[in-house]
Amino acid sequence: MTQSDIGLIGLGTMGAMLALNIAEQGFAIAVWNRTTDVTHRFAKTAGDLAPRITPTDSLKGLVAALKTPRAIILMVPAGQAVDDQIAALTPLLDDGDLIIDAGNANFRDTNRRSAAAAQGGPQFMGIGVSGGEQGARHGPSIMGGGRAQDWARLEPVLHAIAAKYQGTPCATWMGEAGAGHFVKAVHNGIEYADMQMIAEVYGVMRDGMAMPAPAISAVLDGWNAGPLQSYLIEISAAVTAVTDAKTNAPLIDIILDRAGQKGTGRWTVIEAQHLSAPIPVIEAAVMARNTSARLDERLRGQAAFGAAPQPLPPSTLEVADLEAAMIAGKILCYAQGFALITAASTEFGWALPLPDIAKVWREGCIIRSSMLNDMATALADDPARNLMLAPFFADHLKNTHHALRKVVATAALHGLPVPALASGLAWFDMMRTGRSTANMIQAQRDFFGAHGFERLDGGADHHGPWAMNG
Amino acid sequence: MTQSDIGLIGLGTMGAMLALNIAEQGFAIAVWNRTTDVTHRFAKTAGDLAPRITPTDSLKGLVAALKTPRAIILMVPAGQAVDDQIAALTPLLDDGDLIIDAGNANFRDTNRRSAAAAQGGPQFMGIGVSGGEQGARHGPSIMGGGRAQDWARLEPVLHAIAAKYQGTPCATWMGEAGAGHFVKAVHNGIEYADMQMIAEVYGVMRDGMAMPAPAISAVLDGWNAGPLQSYLIEISAAVTAVTDAKTNAPLIDIILDRAGQKGTGRWTVIEAQHLSAPIPVIEAAVMARNTSARLDERLRGQAAFGAAPQPLPPSTLEVADLEAAMIAGKILCYAQGFALITAASTEFGWALPLPDIAKVWREGCIIRSSMLNDMATALADDPARNLMLAPFFADHLKNTHHALRKVVATAALHGLPVPALASGLAWFDMMRTGRSTANMIQAQRDFFGAHGFERLDGGADHHGPWAMNG
Repeated sequence: MTQSDIGLIGLGTMGAMLALNIAEQGFAIAVWNRTTDVTHRFAKTAGDLAPRITPTDSLKGLVAALKTPRAIILMVPAGQAVDDQIAALTPLLDDGDLIIDAGNANFRDTNRRSAAAAQGGPQFMGIGVSGGEQGARHGPSIMGGGRAQDWARLEPVLHAIAAKYQGTPCATWMGEAGAGHFVKAVHNGIEYADMQMIAEVYGVMRDGMAMPAPAISAVLDGWNAGPLQSYLIEISAAVTAVTDAKTNAPLIDIILDRAGQKGTGRWTVIEAQHLSAPIPVIEAAVMARNTSARLDERLRGQAAFGAAPQPLPPSTLEVADLEAAMIAGKILCYAQGFALITAASTEFGWALPLPDIAKVWREGCIIRSSMLNDMATALADDPARNLMLAPFFADHLKNTHHALRKVVATAALHGLPVPALASGLAWFDMMRTGRSTANMIQAQRDFFGAHGFERLDGGADHHGPWAMNG
Repeated sequence: MTQSDIGLIGLGTMGAMLALNIAEQGFAIAVWNRTTDVTHRFAKTAGDLAPRITPTDSLKGLVAALKTPRAIILMVPAGQAVDDQIAALTPLLDDGDLIIDAGNANFRDTNRRSAAAAQGGPQFMGIGVSGGEQGARHGPSIMGGGRAQDWARLEPVLHAIAAKYQGTPCATWMGEAGAGHFVKAVHNGIEYADMQMIAEVYGVMRDGMAMPAPAISAVLDGWNAGPLQSYLIEISAAVTAVTDAKTNAPLIDIILDRAGQKGTGRWTVIEAQHLSAPIPVIEAAVMARNTSARLDERLRGQAAFGAAPQPLPPSTLEVADLEAAMIAGKILCYAQGFALITAASTEFGWALPLPDIAKVWREGCIIRSSMLNDMATALADDPARNLMLAPFFADHLKNTHHALRKVVATAALHGLPVPALASGLAWFDMMRTGRSTANMIQAQRDFFGAHGFERLDGGADHHGPWAMNG
């Protein structure tokens, strides 16, 4: 029996698709699943690819089926299952072997597991894989972490299975330990924000402009030919075009408006807090999902105050305003996301390659868009500069921020919630205010807590001669 | 030598003030500080209170000076110093003795320390103390945690030293373990938000309405006679009234606009994320501080785009609009804060007494305000109901949300950043929208990740017949 190039544990949707992808690229792969039935059913349905797939019935069998030094990909649920699997594999493996967690781990877990592996036993590597089911099957975006030499060893496989942008594989090593999973979390945070901003302009069209779903679909389709070209705009155009077979109404109008989350958006917000890095657009997106989940309370709110969204008077807004506002919002959101990555790179001693991150997101992942190519260029030009200050994006912002203002102001007046767009605008204005209002905060803090303040004319730890008025 | 009623470790500003407060209330207190000089200097400057204060030169001496069972308050920096102090004290104490951490601990540390104490040794209790230096000296607000019997034992001291609201002590047991420190963290998060909203309307007056600081002070003074009456409005009026001795200009205009934080606002945001509880006004306030800290980047932003704040055309806004917007913003912020407390109460198995929390915040703490009395009434009436739906506050919101809209819209159009007020408004509108836009999010998630969706006409885990357009 020929031994396999690589092993994979966990044949859920994502794991199965990734295994097929690996086999299709010409690698021999041995697979194992906790439930043996699943393993054999998977191998049987692999069609042409079956000759390259070796189903195994035990962890021992999986290990025995692999060329040494071995490489085994884990595609099991994030959390305890990963630790359990590592513990079960470790006694069966040699020190030169490599365990790769390709699930949605919290990067702090990946840091911990990497540190444990450095103490001896098989090596460990965490990689972020984005693109959903279709990405896993036909080319995901891969954000690598762990040791550079382990990445180098696996790179031929990962480059082969990854999405390609004009021939360049969207699979890059980001840095040691949890660097790959960190970058993946930021990707997901930005994904939340992109989705929320689309939902917001969708809401303005639906509730403010009384546009039916097919008309909204046509608008989104049009945007997809411009600066907003992206997978998420494309699928948003697609979902608004579908008719429900049961009711003959647009399917989007039948879908319940209560959004879930799997936690990676939340992780991004939490890490940004630890790093004091402002990402208000992502925060607003997570907030919006959590608020949407409180449907009963929203209905009570509507009963008490009346439904918030009001139709806009004719010609208050044009769809072109919405497109321009989205362009501005998107740039601001990404500027925040990359600034977060910069802060993490410093804090954790990584040297995260900002332009390469933009490049690895150009294909395969959920947030893939044409604008990422321009971002890669701007970040290569000066990775330390805030993205909104790069000439290409600064010009875009100069051309669009007035529309963003108009949309946010109109939405505020007419009860159309656009929290992500509004947060982007407020941050933009704060980031171009040399003299902010934080002097008031500092005065208050010194009054009640003697925290001290700096003066414009120099010196720190001044205190005011405060006394209550009157 | 008569033995002391209570001990206190850590004679920094807050510890010293609390010790004087305890002595003034008639209790004999033994104190110890790492630096012996500090201990003796403190005792010497205690004036009339000196006879009730016993300075000690060693931990052993402190323990020996106390009546049994002993109670020792720690006023040391949050974090490792608390663990170190507990470790040093434990061998000197009996099982019935009690260590009280009155610092700004993260409630998760208090949970951990409480659990450790339950394994044996002296008992441990964490209490949140708010009110800054003056509060500690003359009456803080105290949010108690730990075991009910330990609270009961210490209650006479805590009631005596606490602030009083019309004779009622602002010192209440909130629940087991870290409950007190959790409530204190939410207090601080709300404090951030109250301060930020004041800074925002200050900015509108300063930059939009070209009002000099003394005129702003007069406006704030006027608000302090209305629904916004509060310590923070009062001190904001005070700080805007002060003239700088050096420049003869208003002192507020000389204070550098770069705000720091000590982390409790951040903790509140992080815990809210874990609990999926939306607190966007507090998030915006933390974001604003972090953004203010990036002064160099703000100056670069101003150079690239021009300064954001633009003067408002005459009569665009009146100060009465700002007052009404602040009233709405404040109600919305507190509704979010109390909803967070409700979520924590469920998650951690506490039975946090919502009306009592409002009551304990009425005096002594930083966010004390007349509106908290109305909140206590509304929460006593129905603690499960979102505060914004309580008739008293719903009426306020009906009267003020139009002004909030006007302020947010005007600010958006004229580059005046009001992130906290804007976040409050967006959340308000989401909370009164029975049909939100999260159906778009759910459609997108099902498209790329097969996450499934619920239908309005029933059933979960539906999937769309998705395909790309065209």
